[in-house]
Amino acid sequence: MLCVAAACAVALIPITLSAVEDDSSPIFGVRIPVGYRQWELIAPSHETGSFNELRGILGNPIALKAYREGTLPFPDGAILAKLAWKREPSTEFPGAFVPGHATTVQIMVKDSRKYEATGGWGFGRFIDGMAVDRAQHETCFACHQANVKDHDYVFTRFAP
Amino acid sequence: MLCVAAACAVALIPITLSAVEDDSSPIFGVRIPVGYRQWELIAPSHETGSFNELRGILGNPIALKAYREGTLPFPDGAILAKLAWKREPSTEFPGAFVPGHATTVQIMVKDSRKYEATGGWGFGRFIDGMAVDRAQHETCFACHQANVKDHDYVFTRFAP
Repeated sequence: MLCVAAACAVALIPITLSAVEDDSSPIFGVRIPVGYRQWELIAPSHETGSFNELRGILGNPIALKAYREGTLPFPDGAILAKLAWKREPSTEFPGAFVPGHATTVQIMVKDSRKYEATGGWGFGRFIDGMAVDRAQHETCFACHQANVKDHDYVFTRFAP
Repeated sequence: MLCVAAACAVALIPITLSAVEDDSSPIFGVRIPVGYRQWELIAPSHETGSFNELRGILGNPIALKAYREGTLPFPDGAILAKLAWKREPSTEFPGAFVPGHATTVQIMVKDSRKYEATGGWGFGRFIDGMAVDRAQHETCFACHQANVKDHDYVFTRFAP
Protein backbone atom coordinates (compact mmCIF):
# COMPACT_ATOMS: atom_id res chain seq x y z
CA MET A 1 0.00 0.00 0.00
CA LEU A 2 2.83 2.38 0.80
CA CYS A 3 4.35 1.69 -2.60
CA VAL A 4 1.09 2.48 -4.31
CA ALA A 5 0.77 5.72 -2.35
CA ALA A 6 4.34 6.67 -3.23
CA ALA A 7 3.69 6.02 -6.90
CA CYS A 8 0.64 8.28 -6.78
CA ALA A 9 2.65 11.00 -5.06
CA VAL A 10 5.25 10.86 -7.81
CA ALA A 11 2.60 11.10 -10.46
CA LEU A 12 1.20 14.21 -8.80
CA ILE A 13 4.49 16.17 -8.68
CA PRO A 14 4.08 19.31 -10.82
CA ILE A 15 6.07 19.10 -14.05
CA THR A 16 7.80 22.40 -13.20
CA LEU A 17 10.06 20.55 -10.73
CA SER A 18 13.50 19.97 -12.19
CA ALA A 19 15.51 16.80 -12.01
CA VAL A 20 17.99 18.30 -9.51
CA GLU A 21 15.38 18.55 -6.78
CA ASP A 22 15.88 15.78 -4.30
CA ASP A 23 15.87 15.20 -0.56
CA SER A 24 19.66 14.97 -0.50
CA SER A 25 21.92 17.87 -1.32
CA PRO A 26 23.92 18.11 -4.57
CA ILE A 27 27.69 17.77 -4.21
CA PHE A 28 27.47 16.63 -0.55
CA GLY A 29 24.61 14.13 -0.41
CA VAL A 30 23.46 15.56 2.92
CA ARG A 31 19.91 14.79 4.04
CA ILE A 32 17.74 16.37 6.72
CA PRO A 33 18.50 14.29 9.84
CA VAL A 34 15.67 12.41 11.49
CA GLY A 35 14.57 14.08 14.72
CA TYR A 36 16.54 17.30 14.20
CA ARG A 37 13.64 19.45 15.43
CA GLN A 38 14.06 17.92 18.90
CA TRP A 39 17.76 18.84 19.16
CA GLU A 40 19.05 21.40 21.64
CA LEU A 41 19.25 25.07 20.86
CA ILE A 42 22.76 26.41 20.28
CA ALA A 43 21.60 29.99 19.64
CA PRO A 44 18.96 32.09 17.91
CA SER A 45 19.90 34.67 15.29
CA HIS A 46 18.39 37.42 13.19
CA GLU A 47 19.20 37.94 9.53
CA THR A 48 18.28 41.37 8.22
CA GLY A 49 17.99 42.68 4.64
CA SER A 50 16.07 40.70 2.08
CA PHE A 51 16.27 37.58 4.24
CA ASN A 52 14.40 39.22 7.13
CA GLU A 53 14.50 35.98 9.08
CA LEU A 54 14.59 34.68 12.61
CA ARG A 55 16.64 31.55 13.02
CA GLY A 56 17.22 28.85 15.54
CA ILE A 57 20.45 26.88 15.27
CA LEU A 58 20.17 23.43 16.82
CA GLY A 59 22.76 20.70 17.24
CA ASN A 60 22.86 16.97 17.81
CA PRO A 61 24.34 15.62 21.07
CA ILE A 62 27.86 15.30 19.59
CA ALA A 63 27.78 18.94 18.52
CA LEU A 64 26.41 20.18 21.85
CA LYS A 65 29.04 18.26 23.81
CA ALA A 66 31.74 19.90 21.68
CA TYR A 67 30.22 23.36 22.22
CA ARG A 68 29.98 22.90 26.00
CA GLU A 69 33.54 21.59 26.26
CA GLY A 70 34.96 24.09 23.79
CA THR A 71 36.23 21.35 21.47
CA LEU A 72 37.57 22.56 18.12
CA PRO A 73 37.55 21.25 15.48
CA PHE A 74 34.15 19.63 15.94
CA PRO A 75 34.39 15.83 16.05
CA ASP A 76 33.10 13.62 13.28
CA GLY A 77 29.41 12.99 13.71
CA ALA A 78 28.60 16.53 14.82
CA ILE A 79 25.58 17.90 12.98
CA LEU A 80 24.20 21.44 13.04
CA ALA A 81 20.71 22.40 11.84
CA LYS A 82 19.77 26.00 11.12
CA LEU A 83 16.00 26.54 10.99
CA ALA A 84 14.86 29.79 9.41
CA TRP A 85 11.51 31.55 9.43
CA LYS A 86 10.33 34.86 8.05
CA ARG A 87 10.44 37.50 10.78
CA GLU A 88 6.98 38.93 11.36
CA PRO A 89 5.63 41.47 13.83
CA SER A 90 3.70 39.97 16.70
CA THR A 91 0.02 40.86 16.51
CA GLU A 92 -0.17 40.50 20.28
CA PHE A 93 2.77 42.49 21.62
CA PRO A 94 3.94 45.71 19.95
CA GLY A 95 7.67 45.77 19.25
CA ALA A 96 8.06 41.99 19.31
CA PHE A 97 8.84 39.94 16.23
CA VAL A 98 8.06 36.25 15.91
CA PRO A 99 8.51 33.44 13.36
CA GLY A 100 6.29 33.49 10.31
CA HIS A 101 6.42 30.74 7.70
CA ALA A 102 9.44 28.44 7.54
CA THR A 103 11.86 29.32 4.73
CA THR A 104 14.87 27.00 4.83
CA VAL A 105 16.50 24.28 6.85
CA GLN A 106 20.28 24.21 6.53
CA ILE A 107 22.38 21.29 7.69
CA MET A 108 26.12 20.91 8.32
CA VAL A 109 27.51 17.41 8.86
CA LYS A 110 31.05 16.83 10.11
CA ASP A 111 32.87 13.94 8.42
CA SER A 112 36.53 14.82 8.16
CA ARG A 113 37.33 12.14 5.58
CA LYS A 114 34.23 12.25 3.39
CA TYR A 115 34.28 16.05 3.23
CA GLU A 116 38.03 16.60 3.41
CA ALA A 117 37.95 19.10 0.53
CA THR A 118 35.48 21.37 2.37
CA GLY A 119 36.97 21.63 5.84
CA GLY A 120 35.40 18.35 6.93
CA TRP A 121 31.87 19.65 6.52
CA GLY A 122 29.08 18.58 4.20
CA PHE A 123 26.34 21.10 3.54
CA GLY A 124 22.65 20.86 2.72
CA ARG A 125 20.13 23.63 2.12
CA PHE A 126 16.48 22.61 1.99
CA ILE A 127 13.20 24.29 1.14
CA ASP A 128 10.06 22.40 2.07
CA GLY A 129 12.19 19.33 2.64
CA MET A 130 13.81 19.39 -0.81
CA ALA A 131 17.43 20.29 -1.45
CA VAL A 132 18.11 23.44 -3.46
CA ASP A 133 20.20 23.31 -6.61
CA ARG A 134 23.90 22.66 -7.15
CA ALA A 135 24.76 26.31 -7.80
CA GLN A 136 23.59 27.31 -4.31
CA HIS A 137 25.55 24.48 -2.72
CA GLU A 138 28.70 25.59 -4.50
CA THR A 139 28.65 28.80 -2.44
CA CYS A 140 28.43 27.23 1.05
CA PHE A 141 32.01 26.39 1.84
CA ALA A 142 33.57 29.46 0.24
CA CYS A 143 31.57 31.73 2.54
CA HIS A 144 32.29 29.68 5.68
CA GLN A 145 35.96 29.49 4.73
CA ALA A 146 36.23 33.22 4.14
CA ASN A 147 34.56 34.22 7.41
CA VAL A 148 34.92 31.59 10.11
CA LYS A 149 37.85 29.36 9.23
CA ASP A 150 39.26 29.86 12.74
CA HIS A 151 36.07 28.51 14.31
CA ASP A 152 36.17 25.28 12.29
CA TYR A 153 34.08 26.95 9.56
CA VAL A 154 31.10 27.36 11.90
CA PHE A 155 29.42 30.75 12.41
CA THR A 156 27.24 29.95 15.40
CA ARG A 157 28.52 30.30 18.97
CA PHE A 158 26.76 28.81 21.97
CA ALA A 159 24.38 31.23 23.71
CA PRO A 160 24.64 30.47 27.44
CA MET B 1 32.32 20.80 53.49
CA LEU B 2 29.45 21.89 51.30
CA CYS B 3 27.77 23.50 54.31
CA VAL B 4 30.90 25.38 55.16
CA ALA B 5 31.21 26.58 51.58
CA ALA B 6 27.59 27.72 51.59
CA ALA B 7 28.11 29.64 54.81
CA CYS B 8 31.10 31.40 53.30
CA ALA B 9 29.10 32.28 50.20
CA VAL B 10 26.39 33.87 52.34
CA ALA B 11 28.97 35.85 54.29
CA LEU B 12 30.39 37.19 51.03
CA ILE B 13 27.10 38.51 49.59
CA PRO B 14 27.47 42.27 49.11
CA ILE B 15 25.38 44.23 51.59
CA THR B 16 23.74 46.16 48.75
CA LEU B 17 21.58 43.12 47.96
CA SER B 18 18.09 43.52 49.34
CA ALA B 19 16.16 40.90 51.25
CA VAL B 20 13.81 40.24 48.29
CA GLU B 21 16.59 38.84 46.15
CA ASP B 22 16.36 35.09 46.07
CA ASP B 23 16.51 32.20 43.66
CA SER B 24 12.71 31.78 43.84
CA SER B 25 10.32 34.39 42.54
CA PRO B 26 8.25 36.63 44.83
CA ILE B 27 4.49 35.94 44.85
CA PHE B 28 4.84 32.66 42.90
CA GLY B 29 7.81 30.87 44.41
CA VAL B 30 8.98 29.76 40.96
CA ARG B 31 12.59 28.61 40.57
CA ILE B 32 14.74 28.10 37.49
CA PRO B 33 14.14 24.44 36.59
CA VAL B 34 17.11 22.07 36.56
CA GLY B 35 18.18 21.21 33.02
CA TYR B 36 16.04 23.85 31.28
CA ARG B 37 18.86 24.77 28.86
CA GLN B 38 18.56 21.29 27.32
CA TRP B 39 14.83 21.64 26.60
CA GLU B 40 13.47 21.78 23.07
CA LEU B 41 13.08 25.02 21.19
CA ILE B 42 9.49 26.22 20.79
CA ALA B 43 10.44 29.35 18.85
CA PRO B 44 12.95 32.21 18.68
CA SER B 45 11.82 35.83 18.92
CA HIS B 46 13.17 39.35 18.62
CA GLU B 47 12.26 42.14 20.99
CA THR B 48 13.00 45.61 19.66
CA GLY B 49 13.14 48.98 21.42
CA SER B 50 15.11 49.33 24.63
CA PHE B 51 15.08 45.56 25.11
CA ASN B 52 16.95 44.92 21.83
CA GLU B 53 17.03 41.22 22.56
CA LEU B 54 17.09 37.89 20.81
CA ARG B 55 15.20 35.20 22.62
CA GLY B 56 14.79 31.49 22.58
CA ILE B 57 11.67 30.05 24.15
CA LEU B 58 12.15 26.47 25.31
CA GLY B 59 9.72 24.03 26.87
CA ASN B 60 9.80 20.88 28.94
CA PRO B 61 8.47 17.62 27.45
CA ILE B 62 4.93 18.20 28.83
CA ALA B 63 4.80 21.62 27.18
CA LEU B 64 6.18 20.38 23.86
CA LYS B 65 3.69 17.52 23.74
CA ALA B 66 0.88 20.01 24.27
CA TYR B 67 2.23 22.29 21.52
CA ARG B 68 2.57 19.45 19.02
CA GLU B 69 -0.91 18.12 19.78
CA GLY B 70 -2.51 21.57 19.95
CA THR B 71 -3.67 20.99 23.55
CA LEU B 72 -5.14 24.07 25.25
CA PRO B 73 -5.13 24.87 28.08
CA PHE B 74 -1.65 23.54 28.75
CA PRO B 75 -1.68 20.63 31.22
CA ASP B 76 -0.34 20.90 34.74
CA GLY B 77 3.40 20.35 34.77
CA ALA B 78 4.04 22.26 31.56
CA ILE B 79 6.95 24.66 31.97
CA LEU B 80 8.16 27.32 29.53
CA ALA B 81 11.56 29.00 29.70
CA LYS B 82 12.32 32.20 27.84
CA LEU B 83 16.05 32.87 27.49
CA ALA B 84 16.99 36.40 26.46
CA TRP B 85 20.26 37.84 25.20
CA LYS B 86 21.24 41.29 23.98
CA ARG B 87 21.05 41.40 20.18
CA GLU B 88 24.45 42.26 18.74
CA PRO B 89 25.73 42.58 15.20
CA SER B 90 27.77 39.64 14.00
CA THR B 91 31.40 40.60 13.48
CA GLU B 92 31.68 37.82 10.91
CA PHE B 93 28.67 38.23 8.65
CA PRO B 94 27.31 41.68 7.78
CA GLY B 95 23.57 42.00 8.31
CA ALA B 96 23.38 39.16 10.80
CA PHE B 97 22.63 39.65 14.49
CA VAL B 98 23.58 37.18 17.18
CA PRO B 99 23.22 36.77 20.95
CA GLY B 100 25.39 38.96 23.15
CA HIS B 101 25.34 38.65 26.93
CA ALA B 102 22.43 36.93 28.65
CA THR B 103 19.92 39.33 30.20
CA THR B 104 17.02 37.40 31.74
CA VAL B 105 15.58 33.93 32.07
CA GLN B 106 11.82 33.92 32.44
CA ILE B 107 9.87 30.87 33.57
CA MET B 108 6.17 30.00 33.42
CA VAL B 109 4.96 26.96 35.38
CA LYS B 110 1.49 25.52 34.92
CA ASP B 111 -0.24 24.42 38.11
CA SER B 112 -3.93 25.06 37.80
CA ARG B 113 -4.64 24.75 41.52
CA LYS B 114 -1.60 26.45 43.03
CA TYR B 115 -1.85 29.38 40.60
CA GLU B 116 -5.60 29.47 40.16
CA ALA B 117 -5.71 33.27 40.62
CA THR B 118 -3.33 33.83 37.69
CA GLY B 119 -4.75 31.63 34.97
CA GLY B 120 -3.02 28.54 36.32
CA TRP B 121 0.44 29.96 35.69
CA GLY B 122 3.23 30.86 38.07
CA PHE B 123 5.83 33.31 36.84
CA GLY B 124 9.51 33.86 37.55
CA ARG B 125 11.89 36.43 36.10
CA PHE B 126 15.59 35.96 36.82
CA ILE B 127 18.76 37.94 36.26
CA ASP B 128 22.01 36.06 36.79
CA GLY B 129 20.04 33.31 38.46
CA MET B 130 18.36 35.59 41.00
CA ALA B 131 14.68 36.50 40.94
CA VAL B 132 13.80 40.13 40.33
CA ASP B 133 11.64 42.04 42.78
CA ARG B 134 7.97 41.74 43.69
CA ALA B 135 6.93 44.83 41.74
CA GLN B 136 8.12 43.31 38.47
CA HIS B 137 6.34 40.04 39.20
CA GLU B 138 3.11 41.89 39.85
CA THR B 139 3.03 42.90 36.18
CA CYS B 140 3.40 39.42 34.62
CA PHE B 141 -0.11 38.09 34.66
CA ALA B 142 -1.86 41.36 33.82
CA CYS B 143 0.06 41.59 30.55
CA HIS B 144 -0.48 37.96 29.62
CA GLN B 145 -4.17 38.26 30.51
CA ALA B 146 -4.63 41.39 28.45
CA ASN B 147 -2.94 40.05 25.32
CA VAL B 148 -3.13 36.25 25.10
CA LYS B 149 -5.96 35.05 27.30
CA ASP B 150 -7.31 32.98 24.37
CA HIS B 151 -4.02 31.10 24.06
CA ASP B 152 -4.01 30.05 27.72
CA TYR B 153 -2.07 33.23 28.59
CA VAL B 154 0.95 32.12 26.53
CA PHE B 155 2.45 34.37 23.85
CA THR B 156 4.74 31.89 22.13
CA ARG B 157 3.51 29.70 19.26
CA PHE B 158 5.40 26.67 18.01
CA ALA B 159 7.70 27.42 15.06
CA PRO B 160 7.54 24.37 12.80
